[in-house]
Amino acid sequence: MASNQTYQPLTTESLAARIGAIEVVAAQVGSDTSRWTVREVGDGNLNLVFIVDGPSGSVIVKQALPYVRLVGDSWPLPLYRAYYEHEALVRQQTRDPGRVPQLLYFDREQALIVMEFLSPHIILRRKLISGDRVEGLAKTIGQFCARTTFRGSELSMQSTDKKADVALFAGNVAIPAITEALVFTDPYYNAEMNTHTPELTSIVDSLRTNVVLKQRAQRMLSRFASNTETMLHGDLHSGSIMSTESDSRVIDPEFVQYGPMGFDIGMLIANYLMAYFSQPAHRSQDQLANYQDWILSVIEQTAETFNSEFTHLWKTERTGMLYPSALFEDQGHSSADACTSVLDHLWRDAIGFCGIEMHRRTLSLAHNADFEDIEDTSIRAPLEARNIKMGAQLIMNAEQLESIQAVTAMAKQFNTENCL
Amino acid sequence: MASNQTYQPLTTESLAARIGAIEVVAAQVGSDTSRWTVREVGDGNLNLVFIVDGPSGSVIVKQALPYVRLVGDSWPLPLYRAYYEHEALVRQQTRDPGRVPQLLYFDREQALIVMEFLSPHIILRRKLISGDRVEGLAKTIGQFCARTTFRGSELSMQSTDKKADVALFAGNVAIPAITEALVFTDPYYNAEMNTHTPELTSIVDSLRTNVVLKQRAQRMLSRFASNTETMLHGDLHSGSIMSTESDSRVIDPEFVQYGPMGFDIGMLIANYLMAYFSQPAHRSQDQLANYQDWILSVIEQTAETFNSEFTHLWKTERTGMLYPSALFEDQGHSSADACTSVLDHLWRDAIGFCGIEMHRRTLSLAHNADFEDIEDTSIRAPLEARNIKMGAQLIMNAEQLESIQAVTAMAKQFNTENCL
Repeated sequence: MASNQTYQPLTTESLAARIGAIEVVAAQVGSDTSRWTVREVGDGNLNLVFIVDGPSGSVIVKQALPYVRLVGDSWPLPLYRAYYEHEALVRQQTRDPGRVPQLLYFDREQALIVMEFLSPHIILRRKLISGDRVEGLAKTIGQFCARTTFRGSELSMQSTDKKADVALFAGNVAIPAITEALVFTDPYYNAEMNTHTPELTSIVDSLRTNVVLKQRAQRMLSRFASNTETMLHGDLHSGSIMSTESDSRVIDPEFVQYGPMGFDIGMLIANYLMAYFSQPAHRSQDQLANYQDWILSVIEQTAETFNSEFTHLWKTERTGMLYPSALFEDQGHSSADACTSVLDHLWRDAIGFCGIEMHRRTLSLAHNADFEDIEDTSIRAPLEARNIKMGAQLIMNAEQLESIQAVTAMAKQFNTENCL
Repeated sequence: MASNQTYQPLTTESLAARIGAIEVVAAQVGSDTSRWTVREVGDGNLNLVFIVDGPSGSVIVKQALPYVRLVGDSWPLPLYRAYYEHEALVRQQTRDPGRVPQLLYFDREQALIVMEFLSPHIILRRKLISGDRVEGLAKTIGQFCARTTFRGSELSMQSTDKKADVALFAGNVAIPAITEALVFTDPYYNAEMNTHTPELTSIVDSLRTNVVLKQRAQRMLSRFASNTETMLHGDLHSGSIMSTESDSRVIDPEFVQYGPMGFDIGMLIANYLMAYFSQPAHRSQDQLANYQDWILSVIEQTAETFNSEFTHLWKTERTGMLYPSALFEDQGHSSADACTSVLDHLWRDAIGFCGIEMHRRTLSLAHNADFEDIEDTSIRAPLEARNIKMGAQLIMNAEQLESIQAVTAMAKQFNTENCL
């Protein structure tokens, strides 16, 4: 495909003809395109995603659409996001090698990325709904978060490189605007595209009249929109992780932006908590407690891995201008307390972002399958109510929560309460 | 002057020939360049500054040098900073009309700005050393800070415009790097270019072994380097203000960057506090108390003006995505507490930045004339000691200080203490 060709969306019919001649793709799939099979599997909100199978192997072809797929062409969305996704994948691959799909080919004009086909990986959210366990999940993703967080910040990067990168990613404006509105603001008033389970109306009303809560959510928005601590994944929920029984990979960083260090890990934990609260509708009584406990153990171990990996990198890779060893170790002063303090601030942010993500996934536009798959709203609503109430408590008390165990204990408490 | 000519520094001899033909300059100064007189008056650290007088009037010609003038060509500094200074002046002129010098001409290649000659204005720092009062100073500069702070943030600007601007100014990397090192880190260890008054050695040693203080200073550096709340002046001290008896103007925004909303006002107050502490060496006993009280009243009124103007803009110009009226007023909910909370956070930052600026001006590379003009170090050192100790207290207790009156009361207390 000539790379200067005008953008055109791929179809299952046109795909082989359009990308079959690209050497690296042909090498992976097989050069005889007549033996290719192409399936469109994009179940996300924004893009075309094809699985291409051939005699030698398979690849994923992901192409941005110029609008929000979930909503339609009434909501245009710039194609340039594929460029930023590609740039993010390159950096994530460097910062935590092997954790993101291997890049095979990128065409900026076509907003098209060809990458490794992960198999037999499936979306983690589906596994959590099915009650599957993933060995090593907490360790793998906790490390990914810590490594990308630390290595993308001025704790590690040279300031000139980091600032040039901030300028580069500041071009990805349309994507943060989605997060800013859908995540931080829409849940807290009757925004046009909001939906919620009908039985929740009174709980939603009480949330939306809590002025202090709204203030705190806007403060978190301000932190999100005006902070460039590190390069975020930007959308790290259980739909952006693909797992087997024992391997997990991170996909889809098109919401990449520079932002606060606590954002990714906070959003991730929110999605685990939603998996947790939704379980009573997905598990039989004899499996429920065990599986819910496993989810909470994943949350705790993810946080513990994050902290220990971040601390390890602090000790071994602190090469940026922040907290330089010239000021601490070289003077015979430990920087251990400084590391603890940075982590404390990071977690305060994370807890706030966590609460907000729990709200937006039940009150704003893009809901989670964890709850949406529960068709009977009389079952779904009380579970969502627990999630919403705990989200509010996290937002209101982010500074008071001393440890991840306080968060999981709170979840256990809400899990027994009638919140409707 | 052909704008595509290679960069060459101006001299008093070459200036008229090189810029005499520029229409807007000739109109201001007079077209007969043989009647021009040109003086180089740059007493700053970075640039050439010429006053050009002619039969019709005068202009200021400011040209960046490709190195730090204070240090010499061993410390190169990109010429592109003149471009950012120009862009900053354009925005400040829009956000607080009339408060910055009027721009007449800009040549990017020559890193050269021709602008209004302010007369009979002199640098405010000189007035404070001389014991002159400036009517309306607090109101004028308090408003300038509030207006530029508010109108450059996403409280006011559309997010796409603001983010494009963040990307633009992220190109000004060499300048923030100076602030980052000289202001936030160098004061707290024995950095190569540091100097301090010899009698201060023991107080400096005790500062540099205060690990918690260093931690807090690094946290403020992290806030400064990874925060894009608004477009800062970036160097708003009493040497960047020019005043008559009753008018004040703001100059020299070449340290412009996006940063935390509390930075400019915090740095400004630090410089007022240094003027305050230095007074015993500059005033006779009969004038001292009165003039010191006047400086403290300027600090208090600047803060009060800042708060009232910010609050006024909050009520009347909140057109950005942060704290939208859709979430508050449109729902019948006041946003007054939200405004107070934003100001509280802003002031916490400001107090921290204030303390750090007080330190770097006595311990790092670029000292203040307020203290440096005191030739007898046995007089200078005890006054600087008060300044350093109060700076430390501000950094350590930024969260506990409830009002600007707590700051001025603290200054009064230190002003009576033997801190050496």
